[in-house]
Amino acid sequence: MIILDVRPQIDNGRYPIKREVGDWLTVSADIFKDGHDTLSAVLQYRTWHDAEWSETEMRFVDNDRWEVSFVLDQNTRYRYRILAFPNALDTWLDEISKKHAAGLDVSLELREGDLILQHMASASGDAERGVEPVLARLRASDDRNAAMAVLSDRTAIATLQSWVVRDRARMSPVLEVIVDRPAARYASWYSLFPRSQGGVTGESGTFDDVIARLPAIAAMGFDVLYLLPIHPISSTNRKGKNNAVRAAPGDPGVPYAIGSPEGGHDAIEPSLGTIDDFDRLVAAVVELGMEVALDVAIQAAPDHPWATTHPDWFTVRPDGSIKFAENPPKKYEDIYPIDFSTASWRPLWEELRRVILFWVGHGVTSFRVDNPHTKPVVFWEWLIREVHREHPEVIFLSEAFTRPKMMAALAKAGFAQSYTYFTWRNERREITEYALELTATDRAEYMRGNFFPNTHDILPRYLQTGGRPAFQTRLALAATLSSVYGIYSGFELCENTAVPGKEEYLNSEKYELKVWDWDRPGNIVADVTAINTARRAHPALQEYDNLRFYGADDDRVLCYAKVTPDRADRVLAIVSLDPHQPVTTWVHLDLSDLHLLYDPSIAVTNLITGASWLWTGAHHQITLDPTVSPYLLLSLSPS
Amino acid sequence: MIILDVRPQIDNGRYPIKREVGDWLTVSADIFKDGHDTLSAVLQYRTWHDAEWSETEMRFVDNDRWEVSFVLDQNTRYRYRILAFPNALDTWLDEISKKHAAGLDVSLELREGDLILQHMASASGDAERGVEPVLARLRASDDRNAAMAVLSDRTAIATLQSWVVRDRARMSPVLEVIVDRPAARYASWYSLFPRSQGGVTGESGTFDDVIARLPAIAAMGFDVLYLLPIHPISSTNRKGKNNAVRAAPGDPGVPYAIGSPEGGHDAIEPSLGTIDDFDRLVAAVVELGMEVALDVAIQAAPDHPWATTHPDWFTVRPDGSIKFAENPPKKYEDIYPIDFSTASWRPLWEELRRVILFWVGHGVTSFRVDNPHTKPVVFWEWLIREVHREHPEVIFLSEAFTRPKMMAALAKAGFAQSYTYFTWRNERREITEYALELTATDRAEYMRGNFFPNTHDILPRYLQTGGRPAFQTRLALAATLSSVYGIYSGFELCENTAVPGKEEYLNSEKYELKVWDWDRPGNIVADVTAINTARRAHPALQEYDNLRFYGADDDRVLCYAKVTPDRADRVLAIVSLDPHQPVTTWVHLDLSDLHLLYDPSIAVTNLITGASWLWTGAHHQITLDPTVSPYLLLSLSPS
Repeated sequence: MIILDVRPQIDNGRYPIKREVGDWLTVSADIFKDGHDTLSAVLQYRTWHDAEWSETEMRFVDNDRWEVSFVLDQNTRYRYRILAFPNALDTWLDEISKKHAAGLDVSLELREGDLILQHMASASGDAERGVEPVLARLRASDDRNAAMAVLSDRTAIATLQSWVVRDRARMSPVLEVIVDRPAARYASWYSLFPRSQGGVTGESGTFDDVIARLPAIAAMGFDVLYLLPIHPISSTNRKGKNNAVRAAPGDPGVPYAIGSPEGGHDAIEPSLGTIDDFDRLVAAVVELGMEVALDVAIQAAPDHPWATTHPDWFTVRPDGSIKFAENPPKKYEDIYPIDFSTASWRPLWEELRRVILFWVGHGVTSFRVDNPHTKPVVFWEWLIREVHREHPEVIFLSEAFTRPKMMAALAKAGFAQSYTYFTWRNERREITEYALELTATDRAEYMRGNFFPNTHDILPRYLQTGGRPAFQTRLALAATLSSVYGIYSGFELCENTAVPGKEEYLNSEKYELKVWDWDRPGNIVADVTAINTARRAHPALQEYDNLRFYGADDDRVLCYAKVTPDRADRVLAIVSLDPHQPVTTWVHLDLSDLHLLYDPSIAVTNLITGASWLWTGAHHQITLDPTVSPYLLLSLSPS
Repeated sequence: MIILDVRPQIDNGRYPIKREVGDWLTVSADIFKDGHDTLSAVLQYRTWHDAEWSETEMRFVDNDRWEVSFVLDQNTRYRYRILAFPNALDTWLDEISKKHAAGLDVSLELREGDLILQHMASASGDAERGVEPVLARLRASDDRNAAMAVLSDRTAIATLQSWVVRDRARMSPVLEVIVDRPAARYASWYSLFPRSQGGVTGESGTFDDVIARLPAIAAMGFDVLYLLPIHPISSTNRKGKNNAVRAAPGDPGVPYAIGSPEGGHDAIEPSLGTIDDFDRLVAAVVELGMEVALDVAIQAAPDHPWATTHPDWFTVRPDGSIKFAENPPKKYEDIYPIDFSTASWRPLWEELRRVILFWVGHGVTSFRVDNPHTKPVVFWEWLIREVHREHPEVIFLSEAFTRPKMMAALAKAGFAQSYTYFTWRNERREITEYALELTATDRAEYMRGNFFPNTHDILPRYLQTGGRPAFQTRLALAATLSSVYGIYSGFELCENTAVPGKEEYLNSEKYELKVWDWDRPGNIVADVTAINTARRAHPALQEYDNLRFYGADDDRVLCYAKVTPDRADRVLAIVSLDPHQPVTTWVHLDLSDLHLLYDPSIAVTNLITGASWLWTGAHHQITLDPTVSPYLLLSLSPS
């Protein structure tokens, strides 16, 4: 008995795959055996909390391939495995039926069947009840025709199948699937520095200021409010405006320089408010149907309590000092990196778990993890598993802009979502290739790309130089190429002033207090709102792995669609990558792919303007004028 | 530390890959780690007989991929694994060099280096000798410039690498490669029934008759003489001519009905000779530079000694009888199949190992295994491993014409060669696809297709209807598409009389004694000889995985080439699949692929006729006339 090539499977089963609650998981495998025995195979599965395996029968497809689907209806982790065995009952039924049909004497075969059924009956007490009636009927048969009539009784035979003895069975390795809640796949994120939400120049915004901003954020259609670090900021080696090595008096410091006498990762920067204020903020967010994500940066500033209580968690140099973060010859004197190779790693891991669970206890349901690739992958695998044990709802977003295989490894370790290179993919060919690599290959089994057109660290050149249309284009791409995306606040204001020659914001909020005019002229709040509204209305935009690209004659134009598996919802996006010039081009739909091949015409609705019209055929000429809108977002349906 | 995607690898390492003595094995893997440590990786390998692992350093390629090649110089099995570890020495050297180059004070770094070297020195007694001199020179340095000069001494630093402490190392799973002798990849097989080699009608040929035939077989250029079963034939239920259910008096029976009072699988049918005669045959074969392959059919006829001594190895029915072979409603009363699910499987397996080793002891070096797919794959895996333990030179050929995944599984289990569907692939598209599937995919890592245009069981319709040119075409294809091929005797005589409506030989040697005229008019002995001569002269034809197809305008024509890895030898084959009509067509070579792009003209030699000429360019018009020859076999070289 051989079971091979069980799919889906990542790295020989070393890492779990991912799905979302409500999904059907289809498992297939090559299953075969020498000789002519009839085979049976079942898929067995159970969640973390189930004491027993459930099982469902696998179906033979073709060419030794077997398959079955089962529904994942809980937010937890499931284990699953395949059990295959020769089915002595079916093998015998097949043989005796063929011989009887050919008019051969089957009396010896009936005696053999009697032995098989006896073996089934005696194999367990339960089986006896199920098998005995058939055995009795067979033995009571006057002749072979009467016996064969019993064997033709499908109900009786179907009942027997439960009692087939599974000797000579083979088991596949046990595989795992993380079943996240649907928000792991479909959500719109909005990130901000709480201290920049105030209205008075030179004063820190507070959690109450954030609460005041919530209705506007909710109105734009966001699901997740992602707060940049809210912990006490170190005074020692504090940095100043625009990353100055020394702070000027009154500079608030960098929120990533975590830790002060007021506390560390489980404390709140006093200028933002108290833990009670934070709890009120969380409640207000939830009230509006959103959730809170917190930044997790595992590092300490010189004033962090860990530097005193746990110097063994850091690299101590021969002169007794703790080693700063470095990228030789550069050094970062406001940061002590944690040394995960420390001998006292166990209390370190446990402290980090405590910190996460502390915030979970305060209503935080998502964590955006800063630079996870500088910590061991096995640590994340452990931490996420530990948190999921009681809190499977928690979503971890991996902020790793590093080498592709490390980014993949972090996703495999359990991060529900990952930052991607989308931020720097600007040309049609590179966007197409990368989006398909993420959503239409094995990568999609374990990695969900959360597309950010900007972050507090990254103002890409395309946004620096393309003006308002560039922001509209990148928004449309992020929000429709992936089902999960986010922006860093200020994006909707088309803020694009960079440090010259760099991809960093000038006068960045990372280093100073800011006050914003959230209704600033030229903003694209209307686009954000319309696109998020379209995402909520259209299930096709809520799926991750359903992206299909179509042709456009002008290679500055991307044309792609998403269709739901039930084909009931179709959204077509046509996006110009040229923020400077109008583009007129033909686009070429694949009507078969869109399941619109046999419809005489297509009803089209512009999801931004609400306009609607009819299209006939696959080929359409469109014009995208960046002064009007560089993108079209269309719903298609049979007319 | 993460090691992933180690290649080559079959089914998560469950099965070994295959190579031949003299090959370089290239192993690669993704190797990476969190953070900024410099990594080192080594490949460790050892044969079955080595007490210690050898190791060779892996080289970083790109994108976290590492690679190394090592030579497989023994006919045995090698195990190999990857060991990767952070290299504290290199990490430190990188840091201190950058800082020193930037003019920073490195006195603390020098103290850290002292600690690293001390740790290396103390980690083993051996290391102390290697590390101490460098440590002493560093300590003796007057200032930091002097110390940095020591670190710039490449020889000293290279020496240190052997003593780097491999803590925090990660090991890959252990993988295996079967290194067969080259004949597993490159050989020409010739199969015959010894009893048909005589000259007197109605009398059985003997081993001496085979000995008399050897010079002619050797002259045709064959490497392996494959003898169909030579064991005593059962009298009970003996079959007659053309598979008659009952033999007529004097009928010799089917050689696959193995076993009589004279013995079983380790005995010789008396009409062929004695074991001493067999030994003389083997010696005569070896004398001519060939080797002997024996047929292994694990089944017994009713008169086999096992039926008496080991009835527990068969399926015993409720009436005490042993179950015949069946394919309901058909039954085969001259065969008892072995029941491998028997409780006494251990003595069965051991007896079968004894039988194989018995024949190995008599000089048999290859075995063609009949219907291996009706016996457990794990049995073959065990048997081949057991035989290889002392006799790694033994080659097993799997005669499984069954479902593709079972054929693959048998190859994975250790069969050096496999029968294929080549026998039934007649059209250009299906030949091209199948030959590439076998030779140019992962399949080639473990499966070597031995291409037979006919067997004693199969006379394909193409040969039945195509006459002499069909035999020439199929010979040319078998002998040049694969590096290992064979024919069943009579093929060279273009014997093609079939049982009407079937793919079986009429008056088959399986059921009766035959006398052949080996110089029969119309034979293609000259083609066989010329092609085998070309195979011996051209290393390109001795490689298995170097097949490349080129275009031909007429889809009845196949055009393909084989080139050696060193590009020194190139053979081009152009073969017509139409045995009835002459074909004139253009063929289109890929000169880049042939490494002939920059040569002004190409020297061409016809390997069959010896004619030679010059070609210019990639496009050539050729005519293949089946009355002359339906194929061209050409050697190409820069002129």
